[in-house]
Amino acid sequence: MNDFAGWMRLRQDRIERVLEAMLPPAVLSPARLHEAMRYAVLGGGKRMRPLLAFAAGELARADAARVERAAAAVELIHVYSLVHDDLPCMDDDVLRRGRPTCHIAFDEATAVLVGDALQTLAFYVLAEQPLAQDAAGQLDMVRILARAAGSRGMAGGQAIDLASTGRELGLPELEIMHIHKTGELIRAATLLGARCGNGLAVDEIERLDRFSKFAGLAFQVIDDVLDAQSDTATLGKTAGKDAHQNKPTYVSVLGVAGAREFAADLRRQALQALEAFGARAGRLRELIDFIVLRTS
Amino acid sequence: MNDFAGWMRLRQDRIERVLEAMLPPAVLSPARLHEAMRYAVLGGGKRMRPLLAFAAGELARADAARVERAAAAVELIHVYSLVHDDLPCMDDDVLRRGRPTCHIAFDEATAVLVGDALQTLAFYVLAEQPLAQDAAGQLDMVRILARAAGSRGMAGGQAIDLASTGRELGLPELEIMHIHKTGELIRAATLLGARCGNGLAVDEIERLDRFSKFAGLAFQVIDDVLDAQSDTATLGKTAGKDAHQNKPTYVSVLGVAGAREFAADLRRQALQALEAFGARAGRLRELIDFIVLRTS
Repeated sequence: MNDFAGWMRLRQDRIERVLEAMLPPAVLSPARLHEAMRYAVLGGGKRMRPLLAFAAGELARADAARVERAAAAVELIHVYSLVHDDLPCMDDDVLRRGRPTCHIAFDEATAVLVGDALQTLAFYVLAEQPLAQDAAGQLDMVRILARAAGSRGMAGGQAIDLASTGRELGLPELEIMHIHKTGELIRAATLLGARCGNGLAVDEIERLDRFSKFAGLAFQVIDDVLDAQSDTATLGKTAGKDAHQNKPTYVSVLGVAGAREFAADLRRQALQALEAFGARAGRLRELIDFIVLRTS
Repeated sequence: MNDFAGWMRLRQDRIERVLEAMLPPAVLSPARLHEAMRYAVLGGGKRMRPLLAFAAGELARADAARVERAAAAVELIHVYSLVHDDLPCMDDDVLRRGRPTCHIAFDEATAVLVGDALQTLAFYVLAEQPLAQDAAGQLDMVRILARAAGSRGMAGGQAIDLASTGRELGLPELEIMHIHKTGELIRAATLLGARCGNGLAVDEIERLDRFSKFAGLAFQVIDDVLDAQSDTATLGKTAGKDAHQNKPTYVSVLGVAGAREFAADLRRQALQALEAFGARAGRLRELIDFIVLRTS
């Protein structure tokens, strides 16, 4: 299958099966925790981060079985953050991927432990089997993921997000928040996919990293537009939440038209960063189009 | 300083300084999160897991600077679990190490993020600098820590603990819970300390592992005794909590005298596991005595 939709569907199916096999069986003790971990991870989501890892892996001619595991590790981190962000003491949300959030379907204590155990599993997966050219390169991958997920990355972004609710933010502050909250993990997904392959040259890694920064920001800008414009059924998560919680977003700062224009600009810059790769970056180009043009 | 008390104090000071340097400065953005991470980690605790790592590291003639980092990684996992276990939806506790728990001193959302970011930091620290003989050995260390902390280890133990509140457990079930909840991380501390050194032989690792299983269980049995017998001021955490929350403990199952006897038996078995090491295991012998004879 050479068309993008087919490529995407195949990889979404594949990552689902890989995650399925990675998660402890629901019958294994502690059964309720394992059941809840599977509930949170399986059966949903666009798998945007794994798709970026796959596309970057193809660019670096990486072994697909290795990229799958690296992609799954990133997705586990992403899902853990969703489960914790949805908690009553955080964003207090009841709907995610079209279903009750983890603490609604189970309970709060279980949801805290689900997030905790999914994060641990991500690092286990990243260390379990050979993924990079050598063990030193694989330790690098652990560092990349940990840096992206920690207090100076994703978790820090959520802290900034919580602190910004009800305040007015300018564009630079909004950007800082999102670079941390979603951008760093999207960068990590792209870099880890590439790390599974034949070592890219330093300038190639830099270009890929530039691409991933624009792609991550574009993803967030469109997320804000969709939150403002779509309904809950289409999104599979509570729509209009940002405005309701009085959160600063690209829409509240730029308006819908301005935000869409900004996303289009980010797309142009992302494509520019890929230029020197030629045909090898085909899937990454299709992905940035998908990110900017998606409707959910 | 050759006496045990001096050895211990020196290493407790050392691990405090190492953790202090590892944690992001409180002025760095997001400042509230970093301040809360430092609050949770610094200035307290017996540092039992680091002490076991140090003692095992000495057995394996490991470089002290390496053991320090491995020990700190384990302690970061331990502290993250305390912060999350204390949350209102979990054990709902207000006092820890003689101070308000993290969600009391800050807020619940911050406490969730503190635990999340401390776990990430633990894996970062374990991958950041060379700790083992080679990179492959260090990836092994990442695996050991992840296995010990995850749903089949520490996080799973907490899930079993939550599910057991208000139920009667027999000795075997109680043991399964504690092997997960505290035992696995204590094992990991000991093994990671040793892994920083000259490769121990397989049978030496096995003996060390046997020791750490007995030591971990003895630690928990005495914890239960102290919870039942000490006052809050001595413990620095809420005393009598287990009985109050109707949790099964070694004291509820065996009585105080029976629990002390069981701990003494575990100590004997732990010492037996060390026998073949001779003088090299001196500190580990002193540590098991400290674990069983401590009063807080």
